[in-house]
Amino acid sequence: MKVKKKKALKTKSPKLTSSSTTKVSADQTHNQYRNILGSRYASPAMSAVFSERHRAEIWRDLWIILASEEQKLGLPISSAQVEALKKAKKDIDFDRIREIETKLKHDVMSHLKAYAEKAKEAEPIMHLGATSAFITDNADALLLKEGAVLILQKLGVILESLGSLMLTYKNLETTGFTHFQPAQPVTVGKRFALWAQDLLWDYEELEFALQRLEPLGCKGTTGTQASFAVLFKNDFKKVKALDDGVCKQMGFDRAVALSGQTLSRKVDVWFLQALANLGASFSKMSYDMRLLQHLREVTEPFAEKQIGSSAMPYKQNPMLAERITGLSRFLMGLSSNANWTFATQWLERSLDDSSNRRLTLPEAFLTADALCESAHRLLKGVQVHKTEIKNRIDIYAAQFETEALMMEGTLKGGSRQKIHEEIRQQMLKGKLNKKGIKYSLSGFASEQVQDFHKNILSPFLKSRKKSKGVSFNAAAI
Amino acid sequence: MKVKKKKALKTKSPKLTSSSTTKVSADQTHNQYRNILGSRYASPAMSAVFSERHRAEIWRDLWIILASEEQKLGLPISSAQVEALKKAKKDIDFDRIREIETKLKHDVMSHLKAYAEKAKEAEPIMHLGATSAFITDNADALLLKEGAVLILQKLGVILESLGSLMLTYKNLETTGFTHFQPAQPVTVGKRFALWAQDLLWDYEELEFALQRLEPLGCKGTTGTQASFAVLFKNDFKKVKALDDGVCKQMGFDRAVALSGQTLSRKVDVWFLQALANLGASFSKMSYDMRLLQHLREVTEPFAEKQIGSSAMPYKQNPMLAERITGLSRFLMGLSSNANWTFATQWLERSLDDSSNRRLTLPEAFLTADALCESAHRLLKGVQVHKTEIKNRIDIYAAQFETEALMMEGTLKGGSRQKIHEEIRQQMLKGKLNKKGIKYSLSGFASEQVQDFHKNILSPFLKSRKKSKGVSFNAAAI
Amino acid sequence: MKVKKKKALKTKSPKLTSSSTTKVSADQTHNQYRNILGSRYASPAMSAVFSERHRAEIWRDLWIILASEEQKLGLPISSAQVEALKKAKKDIDFDRIREIETKLKHDVMSHLKAYAEKAKEAEPIMHLGATSAFITDNADALLLKEGAVLILQKLGVILESLGSLMLTYKNLETTGFTHFQPAQPVTVGKRFALWAQDLLWDYEELEFALQRLEPLGCKGTTGTQASFAVLFKNDFKKVKALDDGVCKQMGFDRAVALSGQTLSRKVDVWFLQALANLGASFSKMSYDMRLLQHLREVTEPFAEKQIGSSAMPYKQNPMLAERITGLSRFLMGLSSNANWTFATQWLERSLDDSSNRRLTLPEAFLTADALCESAHRLLKGVQVHKTEIKNRIDIYAAQFETEALMMEGTLKGGSRQKIHEEIRQQMLKGKLNKKGIKYSLSGFASEQVQDFHKNILSPFLKSRKKSKGVSFNAAAI
Amino acid sequence: MKVKKKKALKTKSPKLTSSSTTKVSADQTHNQYRNILGSRYASPAMSAVFSERHRAEIWRDLWIILASEEQKLGLPISSAQVEALKKAKKDIDFDRIREIETKLKHDVMSHLKAYAEKAKEAEPIMHLGATSAFITDNADALLLKEGAVLILQKLGVILESLGSLMLTYKNLETTGFTHFQPAQPVTVGKRFALWAQDLLWDYEELEFALQRLEPLGCKGTTGTQASFAVLFKNDFKKVKALDDGVCKQMGFDRAVALSGQTLSRKVDVWFLQALANLGASFSKMSYDMRLLQHLREVTEPFAEKQIGSSAMPYKQNPMLAERITGLSRFLMGLSSNANWTFATQWLERSLDDSSNRRLTLPEAFLTADALCESAHRLLKGVQVHKTEIKNRIDIYAAQFETEALMMEGTLKGGSRQKIHEEIRQQMLKGKLNKKGIKYSLSGFASEQVQDFHKNILSPFLKSRKKSKGVSFNAAAI
Repeated sequence: MKVKKKKALKTKSPKLTSSSTTKVSADQTHNQYRNILGSRYASPAMSAVFSERHRAEIWRDLWIILASEEQKLGLPISSAQVEALKKAKKDIDFDRIREIETKLKHDVMSHLKAYAEKAKEAEPIMHLGATSAFITDNADALLLKEGAVLILQKLGVILESLGSLMLTYKNLETTGFTHFQPAQPVTVGKRFALWAQDLLWDYEELEFALQRLEPLGCKGTTGTQASFAVLFKNDFKKVKALDDGVCKQMGFDRAVALSGQTLSRKVDVWFLQALANLGASFSKMSYDMRLLQHLREVTEPFAEKQIGSSAMPYKQNPMLAERITGLSRFLMGLSSNANWTFATQWLERSLDDSSNRRLTLPEAFLTADALCESAHRLLKGVQVHKTEIKNRIDIYAAQFETEALMMEGTLKGGSRQKIHEEIRQQMLKGKLNKKGIKYSLSGFASEQVQDFHKNILSPFLKSRKKSKGVSFNAAAI
Repeated sequence: MKVKKKKALKTKSPKLTSSSTTKVSADQTHNQYRNILGSRYASPAMSAVFSERHRAEIWRDLWIILASEEQKLGLPISSAQVEALKKAKKDIDFDRIREIETKLKHDVMSHLKAYAEKAKEAEPIMHLGATSAFITDNADALLLKEGAVLILQKLGVILESLGSLMLTYKNLETTGFTHFQPAQPVTVGKRFALWAQDLLWDYEELEFALQRLEPLGCKGTTGTQASFAVLFKNDFKKVKALDDGVCKQMGFDRAVALSGQTLSRKVDVWFLQALANLGASFSKMSYDMRLLQHLREVTEPFAEKQIGSSAMPYKQNPMLAERITGLSRFLMGLSSNANWTFATQWLERSLDDSSNRRLTLPEAFLTADALCESAHRLLKGVQVHKTEIKNRIDIYAAQFETEALMMEGTLKGGSRQKIHEEIRQQMLKGKLNKKGIKYSLSGFASEQVQDFHKNILSPFLKSRKKSKGVSFNAAAI
Repeated sequence: MKVKKKKALKTKSPKLTSSSTTKVSADQTHNQYRNILGSRYASPAMSAVFSERHRAEIWRDLWIILASEEQKLGLPISSAQVEALKKAKKDIDFDRIREIETKLKHDVMSHLKAYAEKAKEAEPIMHLGATSAFITDNADALLLKEGAVLILQKLGVILESLGSLMLTYKNLETTGFTHFQPAQPVTVGKRFALWAQDLLWDYEELEFALQRLEPLGCKGTTGTQASFAVLFKNDFKKVKALDDGVCKQMGFDRAVALSGQTLSRKVDVWFLQALANLGASFSKMSYDMRLLQHLREVTEPFAEKQIGSSAMPYKQNPMLAERITGLSRFLMGLSSNANWTFATQWLERSLDDSSNRRLTLPEAFLTADALCESAHRLLKGVQVHKTEIKNRIDIYAAQFETEALMMEGTLKGGSRQKIHEEIRQQMLKGKLNKKGIKYSLSGFASEQVQDFHKNILSPFLKSRKKSKGVSFNAAAI
Repeated sequence: MKVKKKKALKTKSPKLTSSSTTKVSADQTHNQYRNILGSRYASPAMSAVFSERHRAEIWRDLWIILASEEQKLGLPISSAQVEALKKAKKDIDFDRIREIETKLKHDVMSHLKAYAEKAKEAEPIMHLGATSAFITDNADALLLKEGAVLILQKLGVILESLGSLMLTYKNLETTGFTHFQPAQPVTVGKRFALWAQDLLWDYEELEFALQRLEPLGCKGTTGTQASFAVLFKNDFKKVKALDDGVCKQMGFDRAVALSGQTLSRKVDVWFLQALANLGASFSKMSYDMRLLQHLREVTEPFAEKQIGSSAMPYKQNPMLAERITGLSRFLMGLSSNANWTFATQWLERSLDDSSNRRLTLPEAFLTADALCESAHRLLKGVQVHKTEIKNRIDIYAAQFETEALMMEGTLKGGSRQKIHEEIRQQMLKGKLNKKGIKYSLSGFASEQVQDFHKNILSPFLKSRKKSKGVSFNAAAI
């Protein structure tokens, strides 16, 4: 056994046609790596949630909230100081921040110093009692919430679309497929309903994550609130009031009961698994759509000018469905990070979470958002081809009848097992003919869809607030 | 660049010292691969849940339930036939089943035929209207439930242990660690409480999965209940009664609303993610324990005769904690299968789920069970070494005081940021001395633990039924 | 937003129909969990490689090798002692081993003591200078090798089958599919060749892993060979001779250069990734086969008595292909463990590898073996349906011609881009008719296959030793 | 059992402090999501490799190469047309490309049209015989190569650093750790050598991937080269010449033998696994460093102004090591995508690879690059603290001696097993005292390092071309 020999590889530097440089030029957009989620697939709204500006502004909000709550509870902080913070809030100089960070190598302290430079009066009391995690973790809780709410809103719209589609097509019989071999007929509407059932369950899970989300609050360096014990002279009640008060100002009910330096990294898991599960449902839907598109029974929208293939001009490819398959795979792979991160944390905190979360959390939400965008576009323009559907049913009608015949035979006293074997033999010999039966080939598919819509989907959507103003990104490619 | 050359590998057959054979000998146990979860790590109770006999008996239960419910709803099935099924239920001949399967290559049909041979009278009406998935999927729902309940019971006991430990040690101050560098003190009890908080959240998730679990019921070949429509002459009400009736006999509230041939494979995801999350919490706990064991502050039980190393007789290794780390990694890796399986299902069903689920589901529950066993043993014998703990606190006392000094300085009007810098400089120059402060170094750790136990953990455990009779496997190695 | 309320779950103990017990009864096979890889999918040969007996015998071989090499190099070990070890080698009392282990909680020491009881004379010099890892890690290297060689042998047979199939069908034109939409024709043989190319690459990778595999040898407790330095009075040459000598007796060229207590866990990664990659190739093949089986163009073998569905007697399902998809997913999920284990090892060794590897390594090889078994059976009986294939080509012939027409038009001076657009417009308007062209629709597919077989596959297989006596498991279900 | 009730969640739109918009403003950098790998962790050089401009330029290179090779082989393409392409190459209008793509929804065609607008003369013959995959897949092969070469160069530098460090510290004895419990001493140099051995193996693997990389070449829509058969009037030799000729112009030896529409997606797996394995080695190194940093024996560089904690001014945290742990986890998770993508491809190609690869490939290389950057910085400034190291050895000296005593006792005729037990008993009773032995506690650690450096590492690095001009990014944060 020998490894195929090849000539030695040249390890010269890659000849980059463009010159690389650390200088940020006007054209950096095209000269440096740009994540395609932000530039191509996800909506600007989700991209903004995970922008540097939004994060910086939330950080400043948290410094303001901390100072103002501490003031309320009696610490020597003046209203002028709080006001100074509020006034300087929007004045963010990112170049200055980066300049400081090059020295300190600590991002929260860099933002803090840059903010303090703009709100000099408040400088002595900023961040009082807090550690960096107060800023980063509470901000992340807000971002998780904002991201999740945006996804839920879009998911609500998608479920409404599916609700309409399932009712429209609940009676349209179509060939069922198990093992992707023809099987007893179902209805087109039933398939929309199955996708909806999966997505509704995902909605519940993301909601469950949101309901359980409690921010870090004010826990101090190792979660003991020791700094606040000093500031409030051992008054536990006041410290709890600060802890919950800050969280209420952030829009939550209360702070988490216990923490080390940070919120348990398990909280990330809740969100990333819920998003991964959503991705998996979209993946299942996309596989179904790709197979249906092969059958030409149900197809995704295809624009008149759209080009399927640069070489085969006749092609109409399931591009949206395939994109969904690909992105959901990315999302599912990404989300495993959260549990590995949590599972390997050490004692009150280890910082091996940080760089990973700065990639994983935004990209998971952006990918989930991109999936919602694509799924929405697909469903909005989905085409159902009745002739193609009917033709296929007709081909297999004789086979499809056999189940009803087997049931009728058993009712008349025959052995179910023997009839099964007789039919199988006829089929293998090619002697199976259509006989006509008095029952619907698709059984109660239509009734099931109606029941599901009436008793489960509709009440569910009604109990959630109307998702007014949810906008999908018409301009996306 | 060249690949290191080595001489050609000999591809002769492996020289197996033991002769391999297809014959099942009395000693097959040691001559064939045996999964170590069943033989070494998990409890006999969990192993029995996933045994072939238990599965076969549930299958027979389902055939009995189906026949009896169909009879109730008016199908021509005699009580004698139902009785014949009940009478033959325990008489399972696994050799005969395997013999039939070699021909049919279909496991449900093989079990069905073997059962029918023992209950001849019932043969004509067995499996009436059903498809294999009626048997396999409903049985799996029961196994998921049994497995999950067993895990929840053990988790309840573990949470009780942690509850005791956190109260016992809530005041015992110990060095905190962030980045595994000494940080502001916490208490030993607080660490037990943090583990408990994570595990309590996992309990909620597994419970959430159980609450959402609705079995397949009687949905027929492609989920339309077409066969039942024939049997019940298009009476949807009766078919729904059968659907829910069968599930009630199984101990559930109702059947799932919609399905293809099988229950949505998303249901597996709920359980395997909840188990993986439990594994992750045990992993976090095990990392903490391995580090604490290094510090000799908190150690796992060590039997007198136990050997730490075959070469270093002085070793006392964290074997339980390390086993937990290793098994939780296995569980987390395993559970990813469930979502990949669901995400790539096709239309009404593709059978690429089957072989995978037959490995993934049992091994996930067995691993989770093994983790509970190990965690229980660890906590039951955990040792807290007060002298070691106190000594370390003393070493760092001067540093730990600095936070309180910084707070006091700020209260007196100093700039928090400037004091921070002064202390950092003193420390770098080695000039930091202990001054003595009037505050507890561990802040409100004790109060937090008390609050958590009283307001969260205790009510939680009380609201769950007492887990009487839960037994851990004392004989496990 | 509210979580759907359900009634409180009853947490009573699972009612197990079979009684669970720690006693090992004669019928334990069916009363306890049994991994289905060993009992159903993998070959007895691979199952034997990972049996307890085989492992125990290898351990004893290693104790014999160590003693005999140490004797050769001058340590005070008598030939009678070595002989005593050899004589007692096959006399393994597993019950006694387990009894000892219950006390010591250390498996190598338990085997050692049980062996020493049978070879009393050798007891004082057994395991001299060694630590447990000498036994476990060197044994694992042998198991990795045996497992890999067995897989390579089977893979060789599969590549031969594919070689025949690709030549037989190299000219048989069939509809190509991109996006699972009809595309320019390929040949049936080309598809077999593409699978072969992927599998050949996998063969190279597993071989590469084997070529790089160097066992641990004799490195001592922390890899420094300190114990051997004492035994050989600081003679490094002698210790190196022992190190390599032991490995040569094991059938390897040399020992690894450096180690901590164990071989770098990276070595596992090489094998598990190579197996996962093999699984991925089988998965790709299985997806193709499931789609081709849908098209009824190429189908897997189907036995006359085989039952496709217990409810739809006409079904002929791609069961082998679907099993391959499912098992390959399991294998790919499993293999990720190896890198996580390696990546989180601590310093000279942490034992969190142990329980994980005892599950991961055997199951990866057993699954890979099961995949080879299934793929072999599929290819041996694969059926190619020429009529079905021809019919489909005819349907799309007019579209398939368009590429050649576009090329010819460009050669005659037209704009490639404009012709592309014209054809696309005709197609959308349904005006595309077959014109007849003088070129093969499948281009050089046949020539490519011939070239690949002659220049790459044949020489590759020839350069590997003939895999005589490789047996697949005809009895498998 | 009840789920903790919480009040209904408000699903109002997230109140974004910054307004989100599709308009690309001057400040988009901070208003939209920006991947932190490009902006913070990876080098500008690697970022440029995966920039849009570089990709667009490679695409244009490929159109030029195709036209020029086709011309050489006799197709009616004029030199003026080739020149027109060359002349317009650098004139890339990204806005125009995006404008076209909004209509066509096909990125290659959009770039093609935009290029054709600048090189009107060549428009009729551009892309002749090609399909999009000719452009995208051949470009990706180049990017894989460029990325891999850059990583190999940096890895070479890192291996050189480790080479120096291992020699410098080969004799410095330090406490060994198994289970993170003190174990027989090793040397500081030996640990550097162990990291080097792992990384050297990774180097070999990435190199192996590069050696096996053969680009797609000119294979046409479904891999049959049918379009080229027409263009070259069935002359297979000429088409092979084109196929290999294009690849030679790209800097490769030849084109891949077989393909569907694209190169087998298995090729991605080779690279992403090699990168993941590199990540795993860095992870192992980072875990060791974090533990050593805890012990204060070996520490990473710490800048004078650097702030360890915003609340605990005394902290010196292992930030680089922790970042490495976090990023390697991201890389390992990411790389699993490649095999899932390959494993689920359909027949001649399915497009569910595209969106996934556009995220996975660049981010894997950028993360690997960021890991090299961080590892380089860590090793360049690593500090070894001899006093701390010596102190710890002294504490455990009595224990460490026991192994040598056990060996000496056995040599003198005692039973190894009995001596082991005696020492264990003494130790448990606290009666173990230092006796002094005449052997080095660290055995042959120093000799092993010297051997490894001389016989393996040095020749390896020498056989690879000198990595002159490799630059690390001094400005990175």
